[in-house]
Amino acid sequence: MTVAEPPAGDVLEGTGVQGAPPAGTVELLGVLAYGELSAFDRMSADARYAPTLPGRVALSQMAAAEMGHFRRLAAHLDHLGTPVEAAMQPFVRPLEAFHEATAPHSWLESLVKAHVGDGLAADFYREIAEWLDPVTRDLVFEVLGDTGHSAFAVREVRRACQADPKVGGPLALWGRRLLGEAITQAQYVIAEHDTLADLIISGSGDLAGIGALFRRLQLGHTERMKSLGLA
Amino acid sequence: MTVAEPPAGDVLEGTGVQGAPPAGTVELLGVLAYGELSAFDRMSADARYAPTLPGRVALSQMAAAEMGHFRRLAAHLDHLGTPVEAAMQPFVRPLEAFHEATAPHSWLESLVKAHVGDGLAADFYREIAEWLDPVTRDLVFEVLGDTGHSAFAVREVRRACQADPKVGGPLALWGRRLLGEAITQAQYVIAEHDTLADLIISGSGDLAGIGALFRRLQLGHTERMKSLGLA
Repeated sequence: MTVAEPPAGDVLEGTGVQGAPPAGTVELLGVLAYGELSAFDRMSADARYAPTLPGRVALSQMAAAEMGHFRRLAAHLDHLGTPVEAAMQPFVRPLEAFHEATAPHSWLESLVKAHVGDGLAADFYREIAEWLDPVTRDLVFEVLGDTGHSAFAVREVRRACQADPKVGGPLALWGRRLLGEAITQAQYVIAEHDTLADLIISGSGDLAGIGALFRRLQLGHTERMKSLGLA
Repeated sequence: MTVAEPPAGDVLEGTGVQGAPPAGTVELLGVLAYGELSAFDRMSADARYAPTLPGRVALSQMAAAEMGHFRRLAAHLDHLGTPVEAAMQPFVRPLEAFHEATAPHSWLESLVKAHVGDGLAADFYREIAEWLDPVTRDLVFEVLGDTGHSAFAVREVRRACQADPKVGGPLALWGRRLLGEAITQAQYVIAEHDTLADLIISGSGDLAGIGALFRRLQLGHTERMKSLGLA
């Protein structure tokens, strides 16, 4: 196993730290890494139930790409002195709780969940990354790059809705439920991690800033539901 | 989706063909590609049931590496003028039949199956590849390279047998059953594909050659069972 291959020697340049990285850095990288592992897990399971062989190939390829992102995060964490497993550990329980509360019951629910849930998480992590050092920020933006899954989900969901207009209503409700569960879990995670809470409060500026952040997340969610044809 | 990215332009040099590749080439690449997709599927499912987080990470990484191999095979097939999905299609049913007949009932059975089953298949494919053009042969040898899974399986199974000597007996029987099912399915696949049958008969030389091939496969199997501590 070579998960934590050391990256090029200059990776720490520009982090602006001697010793410990800025507060919240390890937490953000940890939750992201578990998010990638989790995305791998769900996409590979979805691949198994893809209705066609090309669909199965496409999803398996995307799942594998998530592990490429995971590897980059593990390497950066390793360089910061924290094994990826240790950084992920605090986030296993809350992320699994979210996935248990939102277990999809069909191929289409699963695609909507991946598109809407991962999109929401990515918007949130990008906001936080803006407040960190440039090296970490760039890495976060890189690993949040889409592996092609969004376009795939949009295409499949739109096609299904065109074939049978009755599927749209329940999927729209499903999308709303995902937003609610995601906000509940995010609040829980932040409340449990003081450094993350401090980072978000200081980064946003004040309570009005936090309010604006949550409105931006909601706006992004609405746009994604529109792109699926479910607004 | 970019599964079938064209490889570097010189990939066909040395295949010694104008137009159609040598008989059996597309079949071998197709069964190998489905084998990789299948290995990805099983390893990612096993990752979900890994007893520890580092184990889950290790298996997820190995599963992702199988998709890297898949991508190489898909690119070569694309260059030979056959989409990977078309090349795989004839092998979906027999390989799934093998997996259904040998569904593991525990984490350890699953590790033994991956090590013993993939090892047996790899030995068989390497023998066939020796009779093909050098470019295809080298690609086959490359994608059959171990992704670290064997060492992982050996370590986990040996550790479990040391902790509880009672697990060895049933796992040894399991290994023998895997060999039987694999040979049954291989014979079925060969009987259904004339070009593969012709290639094996002409490659081996004669019936004695085929007998020798099967003895080599059995020998490899025995060695793998020994490495697991199950001989």
